[in-house]
Amino acid sequence: MSVYPESIENLINKLMMLPGIGRKNAQKMALNIIELKKEESLELSFAINDATEKIKRCKKCHNLSEQDLCHICKNVKRDPLIIIVVDSVRDLIAIERTREFRGLYHVLHGVLSPLNGIGPKDLTIDSLLNRVKKENIKEVILATSPTLEGETTAIYISKLLKSDDLKITRIAHGVPIGGDIEFSDEVTLLKAIEGRKEI
Amino acid sequence: MSVYPESIENLINKLMMLPGIGRKNAQKMALNIIELKKEESLELSFAINDATEKIKRCKKCHNLSEQDLCHICKNVKRDPLIIIVVDSVRDLIAIERTREFRGLYHVLHGVLSPLNGIGPKDLTIDSLLNRVKKENIKEVILATSPTLEGETTAIYISKLLKSDDLKITRIAHGVPIGGDIEFSDEVTLLKAIEGRKEI
Repeated sequence: MSVYPESIENLINKLMMLPGIGRKNAQKMALNIIELKKEESLELSFAINDATEKIKRCKKCHNLSEQDLCHICKNVKRDPLIIIVVDSVRDLIAIERTREFRGLYHVLHGVLSPLNGIGPKDLTIDSLLNRVKKENIKEVILATSPTLEGETTAIYISKLLKSDDLKITRIAHGVPIGGDIEFSDEVTLLKAIEGRKEI
Repeated sequence: MSVYPESIENLINKLMMLPGIGRKNAQKMALNIIELKKEESLELSFAINDATEKIKRCKKCHNLSEQDLCHICKNVKRDPLIIIVVDSVRDLIAIERTREFRGLYHVLHGVLSPLNGIGPKDLTIDSLLNRVKKENIKEVILATSPTLEGETTAIYISKLLKSDDLKITRIAHGVPIGGDIEFSDEVTLLKAIEGRKEI
């Protein structure tokens, strides 16, 4: 028999559905939730329900949104001719935080990974190809992760997109600002040297 | 404007009510929840609601329970004459996991902490005194945390309970099993030496 009452045991199991949450963490979190004021934990429950019901994917860029189009795609001040392609909403948010990029996004929701059975049809690549054609896009910046799978995905997409009127770029790889050259791995250092610029 | 849709921003704020969850962690968790299958995140929401509505405190020992009495207090195989006093349900569960202690518990739900405005009335001390009298308890083991506040609480309770027919004990302090003497702090080492036993 579990040391927890049934409803807490159930909550622990549901929390363990979240990536990176093991049993110990889920137990801790379940007890923390129970120890909130009653109205607070009901608010938390409602917030999960509400977000689950309201959030869908933007029809254009596949960002998370409560409307058909996300706030970025709807923003008329942004340059609709440049698209930056990212793996995930997390990466979109990281780039948005720089407050510098003024184009639009395209969220792939994954990277090509044959070993995990993720092929082009599992990502939003078709939708990207359609957008580039229909929206008369001038530049596609490939900002997939600097991993083997991210690189493969970038190369795959760049081949499909290749045309004379479209500029296709890849974000630069190198030593991170504030990072330590001493502790950079070999591949990053190699990329940093290859990508050197005149100053 | 937040980079998140309103319902996600709201979920992030609610997750931040949990102790130890900062904004970054809450953002990560909110996106993980949104990325669950719809039925899974609704199940999580329901589990929080359900546990919040069902869980109350055991009328006898103040453990978490769905019934008036918790499964430990209801278990007739346990020795009802020994009570182990703990700060929290977490500590009760840790002791329960040893599968050795066969008596009952009493959960204080905190420790005396004048600096944080927590006095005897904020804990379940009165209820403990009543239990000891009414249930004809033979031994009270004080297992409050080995911190200044936990020690103070143990001493305070032991003074209130003091009587000729009641054995009052404190759990042993010392070097943890598997721990490293080299890395033990001075107070722990001192307690370990003070509490030495003949072998």
